[in-house]
Amino acid sequence: MVATDYSVGILQYIPFFYVIWSDDLLSASEISVVQKVIGLDASLDKDEKIQLQSWLNRDNPPLDDEIKNWRQTIASSQVKLIENDTYPLTSLSQRLVKSDDLNEQLKHIEVHLGIQPNHYNHLFDVEVVHEKTSDEYDAKNLDEILKGKHSKVVDGFRTFLDKPDFAWKTLRNKEEFRNKILKQVQLLGEAGYGAMAYPNAYGGTGNMPAYAAIFEHLMFVDGSLAVKFGVQFGLFGGSIQKLGTKKHHDQYLTEAGKTKLLGCFAMTETGHGSNVRGIKTTATYEKSSDSIIIHTPGKNDNKEYIGNALHSKIATVFAQLIVNGKNEGVHAILVPLRNENHETLDGITVEDNGYKLGLNGVDNGKIWFNNVKVPRQNLLDKYGEIRDDGTYFSSIKNPNKRFFTMLGTLVGGRICVARGALGGSKMALSIAVKYALNRRQFNDNVKIQEDLIMDYPTHQLRLTPAIAGAYVYHFTLEEMMKRYSDDPQSDKRKIETQVAGLKSIITWFANETIQECREACGGKGYLLENRIADLKGDVDIFTTFEGDNTVLLQLAAKGILSDFRAEFNSVGFSSVLKLLQTQISDKLAAINPLYSNKVDAEHLYNPKFHKHAFDYRTRRLTYTLAMRIRNYIKKGIPSYQAFLKVQTHLLALGKAYSVELAYHIFCDHCEQIIDLKYRALMEKVGCLYALDQINSDARWYLEQGYIGSTKSKAIRQRVERLSTELRPHIEVLVDGFGIPEHCLTAPITK
Amino acid sequence: MVATDYSVGILQYIPFFYVIWSDDLLSASEISVVQKVIGLDASLDKDEKIQLQSWLNRDNPPLDDEIKNWRQTIASSQVKLIENDTYPLTSLSQRLVKSDDLNEQLKHIEVHLGIQPNHYNHLFDVEVVHEKTSDEYDAKNLDEILKGKHSKVVDGFRTFLDKPDFAWKTLRNKEEFRNKILKQVQLLGEAGYGAMAYPNAYGGTGNMPAYAAIFEHLMFVDGSLAVKFGVQFGLFGGSIQKLGTKKHHDQYLTEAGKTKLLGCFAMTETGHGSNVRGIKTTATYEKSSDSIIIHTPGKNDNKEYIGNALHSKIATVFAQLIVNGKNEGVHAILVPLRNENHETLDGITVEDNGYKLGLNGVDNGKIWFNNVKVPRQNLLDKYGEIRDDGTYFSSIKNPNKRFFTMLGTLVGGRICVARGALGGSKMALSIAVKYALNRRQFNDNVKIQEDLIMDYPTHQLRLTPAIAGAYVYHFTLEEMMKRYSDDPQSDKRKIETQVAGLKSIITWFANETIQECREACGGKGYLLENRIADLKGDVDIFTTFEGDNTVLLQLAAKGILSDFRAEFNSVGFSSVLKLLQTQISDKLAAINPLYSNKVDAEHLYNPKFHKHAFDYRTRRLTYTLAMRIRNYIKKGIPSYQAFLKVQTHLLALGKAYSVELAYHIFCDHCEQIIDLKYRALMEKVGCLYALDQINSDARWYLEQGYIGSTKSKAIRQRVERLSTELRPHIEVLVDGFGIPEHCLTAPITK
Repeated sequence: MVATDYSVGILQYIPFFYVIWSDDLLSASEISVVQKVIGLDASLDKDEKIQLQSWLNRDNPPLDDEIKNWRQTIASSQVKLIENDTYPLTSLSQRLVKSDDLNEQLKHIEVHLGIQPNHYNHLFDVEVVHEKTSDEYDAKNLDEILKGKHSKVVDGFRTFLDKPDFAWKTLRNKEEFRNKILKQVQLLGEAGYGAMAYPNAYGGTGNMPAYAAIFEHLMFVDGSLAVKFGVQFGLFGGSIQKLGTKKHHDQYLTEAGKTKLLGCFAMTETGHGSNVRGIKTTATYEKSSDSIIIHTPGKNDNKEYIGNALHSKIATVFAQLIVNGKNEGVHAILVPLRNENHETLDGITVEDNGYKLGLNGVDNGKIWFNNVKVPRQNLLDKYGEIRDDGTYFSSIKNPNKRFFTMLGTLVGGRICVARGALGGSKMALSIAVKYALNRRQFNDNVKIQEDLIMDYPTHQLRLTPAIAGAYVYHFTLEEMMKRYSDDPQSDKRKIETQVAGLKSIITWFANETIQECREACGGKGYLLENRIADLKGDVDIFTTFEGDNTVLLQLAAKGILSDFRAEFNSVGFSSVLKLLQTQISDKLAAINPLYSNKVDAEHLYNPKFHKHAFDYRTRRLTYTLAMRIRNYIKKGIPSYQAFLKVQTHLLALGKAYSVELAYHIFCDHCEQIIDLKYRALMEKVGCLYALDQINSDARWYLEQGYIGSTKSKAIRQRVERLSTELRPHIEVLVDGFGIPEHCLTAPITK
Repeated sequence: MVATDYSVGILQYIPFFYVIWSDDLLSASEISVVQKVIGLDASLDKDEKIQLQSWLNRDNPPLDDEIKNWRQTIASSQVKLIENDTYPLTSLSQRLVKSDDLNEQLKHIEVHLGIQPNHYNHLFDVEVVHEKTSDEYDAKNLDEILKGKHSKVVDGFRTFLDKPDFAWKTLRNKEEFRNKILKQVQLLGEAGYGAMAYPNAYGGTGNMPAYAAIFEHLMFVDGSLAVKFGVQFGLFGGSIQKLGTKKHHDQYLTEAGKTKLLGCFAMTETGHGSNVRGIKTTATYEKSSDSIIIHTPGKNDNKEYIGNALHSKIATVFAQLIVNGKNEGVHAILVPLRNENHETLDGITVEDNGYKLGLNGVDNGKIWFNNVKVPRQNLLDKYGEIRDDGTYFSSIKNPNKRFFTMLGTLVGGRICVARGALGGSKMALSIAVKYALNRRQFNDNVKIQEDLIMDYPTHQLRLTPAIAGAYVYHFTLEEMMKRYSDDPQSDKRKIETQVAGLKSIITWFANETIQECREACGGKGYLLENRIADLKGDVDIFTTFEGDNTVLLQLAAKGILSDFRAEFNSVGFSSVLKLLQTQISDKLAAINPLYSNKVDAEHLYNPKFHKHAFDYRTRRLTYTLAMRIRNYIKKGIPSYQAFLKVQTHLLALGKAYSVELAYHIFCDHCEQIIDLKYRALMEKVGCLYALDQINSDARWYLEQGYIGSTKSKAIRQRVERLSTELRPHIEVLVDGFGIPEHCLTAPITK
């Protein structure tokens, strides 16, 4: 037998060498790990060390026959590979030499090369004792890390949801569906969850971040519930809280929080989807009656797609406020829609929007106003009021600034939309992963047990980077909500820019993820009972509502530019450009051929590299964008047209900036994780996110010369490899999302 | 006034120079067009020529102040820009110099630079007379080109669909919806459309390509109709036609075609989605009773997701045929399911699959068989029979070959699936384009008319390459169906490989396109009444059924490899590799720095470049894939595991091959278009497709050194530019799809 050729010292290394040389990915840094270990291994004599070192030469690799010998040696030994050993390869190796102790040096290789049983179990011709999931990590701990400060509130909320009223059910008829969702919203309101973000005096706890955390959980129950909840408490109630004054709070806020008063948020118009400033509805102050007349001037100027429109008694209506013949800009006015018998009031027309791709539990409608009179006091007048003498007054003199201050109060809603989309993707990922861990795929070889779908490289690549994304965006949104709610005087405009970008990339991420999950579950994913189909239909519109993503990304990009936009036409602009250029040059100084082709694992896995790459991209895009706009403007092209010409460039900048922001927040958060074992796991997850992002924009990096071909390929391989390395922990990672058992009802997860 | 500085000769060129230098994209080849024209222009004197030529130096471009002067000159002249002039820029230019004739040289520039009013209308500060669509092309002619030989059949079919029975309506209850669709299928069957592909003797015309053309049209009525129609006539009827013999044809085919006999196609099992060969249902021949016993052995071995299962009287059941204790492999047997009163027969259990993301008008169900006895004659025995003496006989001795011959007859179904998906994307594109031509978007400048959404560069980029894709795939699928049905003895395996790949890329294309269209229509696209939402839900599953795309692409890739796969382990393999390598080297010889950075328009627009790039990619991927597999195998890794390790590589090859195939077919087809004006339009469409494809894989081309950074950027810019150039014709292009008015009911198209 061939095996007798090897000494015990050599033999224990054979499984490692076999894996190393059969595998595709072995960089210089990894070879040096093994070299070092061999040098330190006291169980080897000098000749053995020389022999083993000779097998580590990349320029002169072991012969194929040698590798076949290794394979044969392992196969004929009849040792088992037990996947849930703590060090499976080392254990196999020690069984091979009939030793009871584990060689510390081999353990070192196993850990530092990050090789996992699912990497190599197919390579051995031995019996494999499979395991679906490693027990190295506990999902409960991950869940605690994700819940953070809201642990108590969230746990209580999960228990609250465990009742028949919140059980998922297919309801195809929209009236039935809407009634069910309405009842759920009422239950939540009565239990105090709706008012959570309001001040204590109005039944709340003033805790917006906790509100966001429970909001995300509603997605696990039903997308329609999350949206209707958001409309009632966030948009309608929130508009009273943020745009109204004490008299409004006293009269309406407690009632809204308890769902005793149902209301809607009437901003968008058919003709003016993304242009709030251009809405046509008018609110004209009539001094003689001391009232405001709400009117829809044209056929397409109706309020459109208004959630809760069919159930509401009252609406917050956005309209051009005209006082003494002067248009003071867009303001919000409370307008009653229906009486106690739920009949629409005079001058009000409401029309059902009908069936939609998803969210059919939400009653969306169109609203027209025909000279509807409301008392002057109904103006939500925190930022602009009509005084007793019938004159208009605002402490914010600049109408532009006033408008954006009002809209700025809605940023919390955008964070919640992103949070909801994130919840949808977590749910879909949990279902798809559990399905992939239950289902075996055929293979042609009868000798081998059928594989779990989750063990396919393509399947790992499909789901694992998305799981990493979900973790990164979770911490990102937690942090953004904290910043938004912590300090009402903080740099709101900056947060607004950031949220605009994040809402876009996260809702797109959610849609792509849910689609991948649908396809990953094949035909089973298409059945409503398995929930992914509904998530797909529901989350789809998240890319459009509360600001169309394409428009928001341009807003974000313009925000990034705005620091020097004022100088576009001035002499100062060239000095700004010079500054930008210097900064990029600094960055570029690092981009020598050595750097752009550096492919060792330490470098590629180092957050410094990721941050550098993201930073470089944002700066470079900003600079080239500014240059292009400047060149247009220098030729006399008006700035509106110049911006039109660089539209795709704006989108790229908006995305790049948002990814960089998310990664920075995530990395900062990782440092706060006390348990080092879990911190390391999260760092690996973050690394996968970052490399996956760079990988998906590799074309741009190649164009810039920031990375070379070799590095580009290495990054792609590392994404695949990290996805495989996380395979043993994938169930723990989705369980860490903490979706309650009673929400995870899809039959395919069982 | 500044204008007086310029002579008439110069003045007429000012608008052109202004556009040229304001724009971003001006390559050497375009400058040379202008240079040539100036040289030839007899209306210019020598000094004027020198002056104009001096403004064409890229290294020393006109000063910004000069460009501003030009702008001012045009603005102060108060000429109008009339977009539907045949030569809008030349006409503007001649109005500027008050000439009545059009300068031929200027016309030449306008045509050869491909500049369109929507390129530059924003650049001028003059009144623009807008037009939504150019009348240069007639949609009817495009429609004729697409219909090809099926013109008469298709026209008749479109008229046939114009009746209330085929009017689109939201039906949320699945029973109601299914009954409506059933009625539609019956109407089509009675009118002879179901039998179209069957021989004349059985009510058909034997015209499979025409069948595919009308099949696509069903998507314009309802996705559920297309699928149920396909199940009844294509799968069920088709299985009798293709797997049965004369006795089956005589007994069943006419009835099936007329929907007097409803049947289903029971292949897939819950436990074996993509592995037909591994299905567990058994069909055991019992000699004593001369019958076959159909049985479902285990709980998860039921037939799954079977369309038409609730309405059918009979099923074509795929099962392991066991004769005299020997498993002869998978065969198809006709098994009655229900009696005349539509009660399920003894031993048959059918369960409704319930609600799905889409296609709720199709009655999908699960079927179990408990020792169900059918006569021996029910075996569809074209490729394998049980003789009177109770022995099994097949003219195809190799069981593998027999199995694949049987499955091969189903390739037509896959073409139809792709065709249906294509129809869905045409429909969505038509709706999205018409919406974008109706709706105006706000802009901040009150002076300027609000833009049509279609005039936004991002919007053009979103929809135009997809329209190009739809044209390319239309001709591709027409041709594949022709090849498939023309000659039953043609290289079926090759066609199968090709169809596997095409089905994958086209159904993915359709899903992406429909999603883009949904987002492009904003909230309006989310309403069911606007049809895109249903298309999205319906077409989604096309990526999974009739073969999961991921599995099919691997099948395609293995097919490509299979020519030399047999030699993987033999000495001959290295000579195959050598051959491949030589071929690639030949290709690579062209990849010198001059080529990889060649960015002039002639080169980038030349099909030779596109074909070279596609060919190079396919070969390179084949070669590297073969090398990787060979290296694994040399190390003793079994081929099953080796293929697992290169899974993502296989997918890339499958896609690359399919794109190349589609483009070749499209180019060949273009040459057959007689009207040169329309041929030129189609060539432009094909060029956009090809560049868009290269653009989306630019990262790979950069990695390979096939293109350099400059070329990569130029390709991206050309995709944007071509999308803009096609803008005036975009409505004609979607109208060319020929979707009948009575199917295009979405309110947002009006």
